[in-house]
Amino acid sequence: MARPDGRAPNQLRPVTITRNWLRHAEGSALIEFGDTRVLCAATVEDGVPRWRRGTGEGWVTAEYAMLPRSTDTRGPRESVKGKIGGRTHEISRLVGRSLRAVVDFKAMGEHTVTLDCDVLQADGGTRTAAITGAYTALSDAFKHLRKKRNLKNNPLRDSVSAISVGIVQDQARLDLNYLEDSVAQTDMNVVVTGSGDFVEVQGTAEGAPFDRARLDSLLDLAVSGCTELTEHQKKALSG
Amino acid sequence: MARPDGRAPNQLRPVTITRNWLRHAEGSALIEFGDTRVLCAATVEDGVPRWRRGTGEGWVTAEYAMLPRSTDTRGPRESVKGKIGGRTHEISRLVGRSLRAVVDFKAMGEHTVTLDCDVLQADGGTRTAAITGAYTALSDAFKHLRKKRNLKNNPLRDSVSAISVGIVQDQARLDLNYLEDSVAQTDMNVVVTGSGDFVEVQGTAEGAPFDRARLDSLLDLAVSGCTELTEHQKKALSG
Amino acid sequence: MARPDGRAPNQLRPVTITRNWLRHAEGSALIEFGDTRVLCAATVEDGVPRWRRGTGEGWVTAEYAMLPRSTDTRGPRESVKGKIGGRTHEISRLVGRSLRAVVDFKAMGEHTVTLDCDVLQADGGTRTAAITGAYTALSDAFKHLRKKRNLKNNPLRDSVSAISVGIVQDQARLDLNYLEDSVAQTDMNVVVTGSGDFVEVQGTAEGAPFDRARLDSLLDLAVSGCTELTEHQKKALSG
Amino acid sequence: MARPDGRAPNQLRPVTITRNWLRHAEGSALIEFGDTRVLCAATVEDGVPRWRRGTGEGWVTAEYAMLPRSTDTRGPRESVKGKIGGRTHEISRLVGRSLRAVVDFKAMGEHTVTLDCDVLQADGGTRTAAITGAYTALSDAFKHLRKKRNLKNNPLRDSVSAISVGIVQDQARLDLNYLEDSVAQTDMNVVVTGSGDFVEVQGTAEGAPFDRARLDSLLDLAVSGCTELTEHQKKALSG
Amino acid sequence: MARPDGRAPNQLRPVTITRNWLRHAEGSALIEFGDTRVLCAATVEDGVPRWRRGTGEGWVTAEYAMLPRSTDTRGPRESVKGKIGGRTHEISRLVGRSLRAVVDFKAMGEHTVTLDCDVLQADGGTRTAAITGAYTALSDAFKHLRKKRNLKNNPLRDSVSAISVGIVQDQARLDLNYLEDSVAQTDMNVVVTGSGDFVEVQGTAEGAPFDRARLDSLLDLAVSGCTELTEHQKKALSG
Amino acid sequence: MARPDGRAPNQLRPVTITRNWLRHAEGSALIEFGDTRVLCAATVEDGVPRWRRGTGEGWVTAEYAMLPRSTDTRGPRESVKGKIGGRTHEISRLVGRSLRAVVDFKAMGEHTVTLDCDVLQADGGTRTAAITGAYTALSDAFKHLRKKRNLKNNPLRDSVSAISVGIVQDQARLDLNYLEDSVAQTDMNVVVTGSGDFVEVQGTAEGAPFDRARLDSLLDLAVSGCTELTEHQKKALSG
Repeated sequence: MARPDGRAPNQLRPVTITRNWLRHAEGSALIEFGDTRVLCAATVEDGVPRWRRGTGEGWVTAEYAMLPRSTDTRGPRESVKGKIGGRTHEISRLVGRSLRAVVDFKAMGEHTVTLDCDVLQADGGTRTAAITGAYTALSDAFKHLRKKRNLKNNPLRDSVSAISVGIVQDQARLDLNYLEDSVAQTDMNVVVTGSGDFVEVQGTAEGAPFDRARLDSLLDLAVSGCTELTEHQKKALSG
Repeated sequence: MARPDGRAPNQLRPVTITRNWLRHAEGSALIEFGDTRVLCAATVEDGVPRWRRGTGEGWVTAEYAMLPRSTDTRGPRESVKGKIGGRTHEISRLVGRSLRAVVDFKAMGEHTVTLDCDVLQADGGTRTAAITGAYTALSDAFKHLRKKRNLKNNPLRDSVSAISVGIVQDQARLDLNYLEDSVAQTDMNVVVTGSGDFVEVQGTAEGAPFDRARLDSLLDLAVSGCTELTEHQKKALSG
Repeated sequence: MARPDGRAPNQLRPVTITRNWLRHAEGSALIEFGDTRVLCAATVEDGVPRWRRGTGEGWVTAEYAMLPRSTDTRGPRESVKGKIGGRTHEISRLVGRSLRAVVDFKAMGEHTVTLDCDVLQADGGTRTAAITGAYTALSDAFKHLRKKRNLKNNPLRDSVSAISVGIVQDQARLDLNYLEDSVAQTDMNVVVTGSGDFVEVQGTAEGAPFDRARLDSLLDLAVSGCTELTEHQKKALSG
Repeated sequence: MARPDGRAPNQLRPVTITRNWLRHAEGSALIEFGDTRVLCAATVEDGVPRWRRGTGEGWVTAEYAMLPRSTDTRGPRESVKGKIGGRTHEISRLVGRSLRAVVDFKAMGEHTVTLDCDVLQADGGTRTAAITGAYTALSDAFKHLRKKRNLKNNPLRDSVSAISVGIVQDQARLDLNYLEDSVAQTDMNVVVTGSGDFVEVQGTAEGAPFDRARLDSLLDLAVSGCTELTEHQKKALSG
Repeated sequence: MARPDGRAPNQLRPVTITRNWLRHAEGSALIEFGDTRVLCAATVEDGVPRWRRGTGEGWVTAEYAMLPRSTDTRGPRESVKGKIGGRTHEISRLVGRSLRAVVDFKAMGEHTVTLDCDVLQADGGTRTAAITGAYTALSDAFKHLRKKRNLKNNPLRDSVSAISVGIVQDQARLDLNYLEDSVAQTDMNVVVTGSGDFVEVQGTAEGAPFDRARLDSLLDLAVSGCTELTEHQKKALSG
Repeated sequence: MARPDGRAPNQLRPVTITRNWLRHAEGSALIEFGDTRVLCAATVEDGVPRWRRGTGEGWVTAEYAMLPRSTDTRGPRESVKGKIGGRTHEISRLVGRSLRAVVDFKAMGEHTVTLDCDVLQADGGTRTAAITGAYTALSDAFKHLRKKRNLKNNPLRDSVSAISVGIVQDQARLDLNYLEDSVAQTDMNVVVTGSGDFVEVQGTAEGAPFDRARLDSLLDLAVSGCTELTEHQKKALSG
């Protein structure tokens, strides 16, 4: 019943956020959830996609990808295959949506921020690390933008973080690593704002379907995990 | 506060399931949720993908797509663009996962069932109609397979259906049509088995993040909707 | 010597044209030649392709595709393969060309009509059904356009329909179904205007090359078949 | 009423067939119809496509392409665009079909001949020159194959050639050059065997639809043109 | 120790440059280095790529490709594969860079010259023949442009040619054919201006790494070969 | 005349090689040349490409790529564009070729090592850093392979490193950073073995062509730089 790395069921892996890991990006963070390492870079560009022009509002988008040898066995490079897989697409969309939930587009003006989340090493929870790290990169990018364009209001209305939870060996656990993730009966990714509301709830029965009680216990666990992540983000950004 | 088509907040649109709409497919259904029409075809093939060979277990997969003029304005054909968009990928994966949750792969033997869900007309809820209709096509395909291969056990362990719910004008509503979907503050797709357990819960804050009470009311509504859909499936399959 | 479905050599399969099958399209028809079912949708858009801008003339184009399980064995989806096959390209071009032959581009003004012809079920003659059904969808689309843009002249100069003919067991036959098509010695698709002139004649020796007498008998048969189809179109459009 | 290059209406352009223009190919020909120049190369390979294995029969296929600057204005390279256009696909299929019509696949054994027809310079009639030249390359490739594999019977049952005909300024003309082709009211490509039967008849109304009398006069002209081309092929192959 | 075709180590293969081989191109040359035959076509177009607009300077670019049966065994067509291989990309870039080294972009004005180098037959040295032939096509294209646009200054500052050299059986040899190239220990392509300076030096150890003395002897040989090629170019252009 | 970062003309930037930066890869290194950071991962797999099977020899290949925000302005992701650019292809091929030059394929047995070189941050010299870092990753991968497969002989015959040199403001300089690279008149990448022989010499005149004296001075500088890099590699691998 013990977790492979000895953690308590409601315990996160060690979290590290190295701010400004990149020299060129307007905001960046190397985020680590245990052995999972994601490099998040925020790029600020003038202008917005065609369908948004003239609205006075900005846009935030994200691209997620894994380096070929971030995983245990090497995966083929999507650029070489010539197309992006469904999982990549799905996570890129999730990251973008999650960050947009805390952005005030009016306050940004017609600028676009692109968040590149590249998984350098994967050990479960790459999408939740990506969202959590991308928030800090976005926060720095907005600081850069506010100064450069003299924006009056902060385009960030709240912070946002994400964590995975799941049922492993009939036990609800927080922040699954790859080993746990691959045997989980139910797997859920939850995105929560700094003030504790939900942005995204994605639960999947990997094995048997799950009942309402299970769902409730997982949601509780996720909210507590995101509360901790919010503290890590605050600390990193005040550093 | 009234819904655009006059329905009660907890009321489904008219549901029609026309079984065996196609002559060639081993199972098929044209399913309608109001003006949303999805053609679901199940194809049975011998053999399984390479990574599953020799396990004695079968496989179920799905492909979702929209006809270019299923929508209000014509969308470009993905075959002409030469790549599948993220939304298409994401829904195809969701449909496949949802059906696999009720399948006993051992009982299937090494066969593959592919579910093609093609949206002929779209008015919101295309992915939930696709899952609900694909289940009846799959059920017929398994009948065909059991007879042809003389399978002892039924590869279906349960039925499965899906519905969308959302918060519109601060009211929790069942089975959003396109008009409601486009203004919903929160949008959730829920996949539920015939015995009432969850297979998939996907909630997204389109506007403001949502709290636990909202989430709970939406889940209640979804479960009641799926209970009705299960009845529609039973009636269609007993027809 | 009898045909598989008992028809006379010069007899069409039952023809059904269900007008306005789609709610969103400016014109649409579900056309059936026996078990062959093609959904034709006409989309009207402002503007024309770049090379035609400023000419004051409109444009008509078509895209043909088959649903994966329209056929006896499932075909791979072209959007998944990432490229359109030669046959699809060829038929799309044929449908577009056939309809353009009866259009007065000046009368349309700078608008584009795109005809999507999606084969829901295939049993031979899908391209000829597509042309015949697309004409009725186009006719409705032009009605819509004339009213909306107050066009003075009818952009349709004539009607157009198409039928396949072939030599099977040394006998010239009209409107081959899949079974006959697959054993035909010669296969010909003929596109004819309502006034009886040829728009397109495409004859192919599948087995042995054919002589002039054969060619002549097939052309006679095709013209008589298209005369009947013209009546079906008229009836549908007056409905 | 005179043709731009002064030819009689039923007169071919000068035809040149340079056999064995390439050193590596098992058969090759540089064919010229006036300024149209197509390099035809036949490659013999052991084995056949998967769907034909074990039948004891061979296969013949073709690929047609144009060099970017074969035309008056440079066209983009299809390899750079990453996809083959509809016209290229259509002509490749036509060339392959035309040659297969005169081949005895049993006599070939399980070998594949691929005919590459690359247009070096285009001035109308490139597909008909390609078919006519590909026949001589194929003939040499079969000689090579018969000797190498000691085949008893000649895999060629007949010869095949092709020519374009069209109505220009209300006059039926043979072998249109680009200038004539671009203003033709009706355009027809006809593929004829050495013994005078039809392999393929493809007529298209570019402007107004055409009547049966027009069609008949074009077919007569095409057959006479192919009779001449057959002589050119014989001379080249006996050289 | 003798070369397969009996040449002296420092001897070029017979060089032939047939100017204006194409009718449509603004400049063209069919160049032969022994059995290697490359068709070079220069296309002049108004305007420059987006990133260069408004600078008053022109642009020169190149595309290299091989016909499928230019080689001993047929290669798949890159347009059919849907992507360009690394070698093709690399050589296209090399040809473009080599020609740009002798061009005065200011003198060209905002025009683009595209050099298409299509290998009709390959026997080693295709990239060096392409550069050498492309220079003469470019020279004619500039003549055309100067006259048409009344340009004051010649956009060519020098001529440019290229040759391959290599170590075969421990001997430095000039202008390797395919047989020699495939066994060379070191292979070097050198691009040299008419005045004897280097534009590009690309040496690769195919087998064992090479020392400075080897490198020096190869450079000497290459310069002498390019001096001869410069004479061939002059003769062709004065013809 | 001073370099932007104050270095002497023959001085490298600070070099850091962090061995085993990745947990999953059989060999890995994060290499830094100043602000240029490349993550090199070596993957060992059983088997070799099809064309090499049954030879008893191994294979080494490489893939180079840049993260979108490794550069000053964000570049589009090649996986999103759906194709790999020419520069990426070219460098991937260079890295593979350079490492193969020091490998004894017989000693490897039929295994494949793939070197992934992903540029996390770019400031000039990314390809030379990639080769230098890939060597240390390869060295560790071979240690892993020798132990696991009990290989008798070391598959590495020598070490290999690479450096860029160039003429900037008429001065020959070692290890150009991005600023210098973008204004260099001549740019050369040189790959040298630990014993001082050349594996690859690639010199390009960016502006004016260069003479032999320039070439010689650049080669001298490159060899001295690679001698230093060899020491860095030794130190890292003995760590």
